Amino acid sequence: MKTRKILLTESEIPDKWYNIIADMPNKPLPPLHPGTKEPIGPDALAPLFPMELIKQEVTTDKWVDIPDEVRNIYSIWRPSPLYRAYGLEKELDTPAKIYYKYEGVSPTGSHKPNTAVAQAYYNKQEGVKRITTETGAGQWGSALSFACNHFNMECEVYMVRLSYDHKPYRKIMMNTWGAKVFPSPSEATEAGRKILQEYPDTTGSLGIAISEAVERAASNDDTKYALGSVLNHVKLHQTIIGQEALKQLEKADDMPDVVIAPFGGGSNFAGLAFPFIRLNLEEGRNIRCIASEPTSCPKLTRGVFRYDFGDTIGMTPLLPMYTLGHNFVPAPIHAGGLRYHGAGVIVSQLLRDQLIEAVAHDNLDVFEAGITFARSEGIIPAPEAAHGIATAINEANECKKHGVSKTILFNLCGHGYFDMKAYQDYFEGKIVKHEVSSNDIEASLAELDTPLIN
Amino acid sequence: MKTRKILLTESEIPDKWYNIIADMPNKPLPPLHPGTKEPIGPDALAPLFPMELIKQEVTTDKWVDIPDEVRNIYSIWRPSPLYRAYGLEKELDTPAKIYYKYEGVSPTGSHKPNTAVAQAYYNKQEGVKRITTETGAGQWGSALSFACNHFNMECEVYMVRLSYDHKPYRKIMMNTWGAKVFPSPSEATEAGRKILQEYPDTTGSLGIAISEAVERAASNDDTKYALGSVLNHVKLHQTIIGQEALKQLEKADDMPDVVIAPFGGGSNFAGLAFPFIRLNLEEGRNIRCIASEPTSCPKLTRGVFRYDFGDTIGMTPLLPMYTLGHNFVPAPIHAGGLRYHGAGVIVSQLLRDQLIEAVAHDNLDVFEAGITFARSEGIIPAPEAAHGIATAINEANECKKHGVSKTILFNLCGHGYFDMKAYQDYFEGKIVKHEVSSNDIEASLAELDTPLIN
Repeated sequence: MKTRKILLTESEIPDKWYNIIADMPNKPLPPLHPGTKEPIGPDALAPLFPMELIKQEVTTDKWVDIPDEVRNIYSIWRPSPLYRAYGLEKELDTPAKIYYKYEGVSPTGSHKPNTAVAQAYYNKQEGVKRITTETGAGQWGSALSFACNHFNMECEVYMVRLSYDHKPYRKIMMNTWGAKVFPSPSEATEAGRKILQEYPDTTGSLGIAISEAVERAASNDDTKYALGSVLNHVKLHQTIIGQEALKQLEKADDMPDVVIAPFGGGSNFAGLAFPFIRLNLEEGRNIRCIASEPTSCPKLTRGVFRYDFGDTIGMTPLLPMYTLGHNFVPAPIHAGGLRYHGAGVIVSQLLRDQLIEAVAHDNLDVFEAGITFARSEGIIPAPEAAHGIATAINEANECKKHGVSKTILFNLCGHGYFDMKAYQDYFEGKIVKHEVSSNDIEASLAELDTPLIN
Repeated sequence: MKTRKILLTESEIPDKWYNIIADMPNKPLPPLHPGTKEPIGPDALAPLFPMELIKQEVTTDKWVDIPDEVRNIYSIWRPSPLYRAYGLEKELDTPAKIYYKYEGVSPTGSHKPNTAVAQAYYNKQEGVKRITTETGAGQWGSALSFACNHFNMECEVYMVRLSYDHKPYRKIMMNTWGAKVFPSPSEATEAGRKILQEYPDTTGSLGIAISEAVERAASNDDTKYALGSVLNHVKLHQTIIGQEALKQLEKADDMPDVVIAPFGGGSNFAGLAFPFIRLNLEEGRNIRCIASEPTSCPKLTRGVFRYDFGDTIGMTPLLPMYTLGHNFVPAPIHAGGLRYHGAGVIVSQLLRDQLIEAVAHDNLDVFEAGITFARSEGIIPAPEAAHGIATAINEANECKKHGVSKTILFNLCGHGYFDMKAYQDYFEGKIVKHEVSSNDIEASLAELDTPLIN
């Protein structure tokens, strides 16, 4: 019987996160103050984040120790299994070897707790009593709720009202771990009340939810704010994924030619790919690392590299990123986790330096890939995860076409148990192709008056 | 760092199922023909089940080989992890050691695929093209859909219309694995059409759904029927759970004093407990094995031991079981998998012989146990699974009260990702106590004219 899952023991959970900044030939450009357009230092983040996370945000140390308390909570689901996709290989009749790292085994069903647990820990260490955040579809809010519960901290989640009303089960999941979930805009904040007064029937937006969560953190000494992607420290924490995968492939006496992960803000991709990019930078290997984004939100494949706001309403520092413009509104695809206008700073610089690749997949192709995977491997993937599957299938088909055997690794970042409505839409023929017109991208970019990068 | 999960490798997946009948001091009484009330032989089952499963239903062999093809599919999620519940122990401040076997890691989220895969395999071996079944809440239908998909067989699921309408996501999950799902009663069968003609607005029942699935199998040569609990071969297949748990506890150099599992038809309990009862019978050990049932459906704690029908409309052979009467209608608790009027034949005989124990838990206590578990261990349990947790908590509290350290093992048979509505009801105060009145039980039993057992 062939071994399907390559497992590690809990003692093999990595004890350091990998910081790719140490190895980057061109370091990321600094964030700029939104008003003065001057570079800002770590202090500007102090009202929102604990000092240890701010240090991690700017550190150039190559390795950052993972506290035992964090590894202890990781051990609830980590090390996550690495699967050899025998079923998918057979279905595709490909000479390629396909592996996937399965992050859906976490209690919240995705890779998000990898950073949520770390962030909650450092906040707890610095005496923070309450963490606030925003959530759209709910994966990030669930992860932070889970993490705060473990450290006996309060968690306040501002959930876009549209999601709050339409996805009650993610809200209940957060409640189960003791979090307070507010439909945003809410009466709990100045920002929320103001918007409700003006637009009492609004369904909210991620931008508004961010404003509410940030306001609560900025105006309460015992409260901080947490973000689930984009920032450097979030990417850092996610490197646990790729480090484990590397150990697991070494156990299987294999090494990937291609590493693939879905791309939203970048933490998913960073998590799997950075430890392999390290091998490229350190040892001159030539592992291709591919970010998979939706054609409906193609910042990496069709965006521009310039300074832009991290949020949609222009409150955050200006970040050097591939962006479609912070006012860009992606089509309402089910892969909510990938509907973000920009790419995190590190990943953007890596793409600029051609150290990584990017591809975009249409919504319909993504669901077809998801179904193919569910039927050949047995696991129903989240729509976000299915983007990585679509890229892996394309690469495996190329192998077949050219009669070469490559080793492909992708991040199956989450299961689809909370996404059955999306599959229902697929079966009912409601999933359609979403190609953004060049005019729309140009129009969104034309609105930007943020600094260019030469 | 303390090790939380005790893991086995895929090569340690047991290669035999354990058949407790071989070791039982009193063998189960034979099933009776519903008309003649005479014992029936294996041939009576031939129209519905493949011969290999019928052989397993009646075999007295102690061990039954698990085919490599079945073990290969098991390896998608097996061996399942055994957790030491450090978080729960701390929360309860108990001297007890608590372990749980987590079956929610299967692609369908429960222990059901352990038998679904085996049943699909034997059907495939005998040239069956299509398997039919009924499903209520959907766990069993999902498991059979998953299993049939792997063997390229058709799967037809008759889903009680009430569930079909109210739980669309379980239906979509089955579709994702390629199954056809009919709301029952349906136009696809004679039985369904007849009922629809008479009661066009009926919401269906499990009894009707069984009639439809059985009719399809009985009237098509290439079609068989499958059951997800109660029968001996189903219990046999589930013993993979307890065998793995035994190996895992041996690795931890431990042995349980108490083994606990939720009780619906018996396969969940049998799966975990039978390999430990084997130690009691073979080696004279004294491991307490406790079945956890809901107070709203208390067949083990308040039912009678006599012959009764396995279904609610009196089509099946008469089985010697603890029963509340086949017309007993349990309160609509969320633990749908435990709402069955009778107990499987083997478990009933074991209880009669005082080789196992049974306890009942109120709905409200069960949800409180579920929340306690979710917050201390991180995993949100299915309401069915929370029954076992409630028993484990009671046992651990007894240990604390008497200052003794016992080792407690329970079956966490499934996660609660598809049960968030149940938790929502809990948070909204809609979960109420369900105590069945003695009058109701007596009235239900008074309707029986089936043979008594002395």
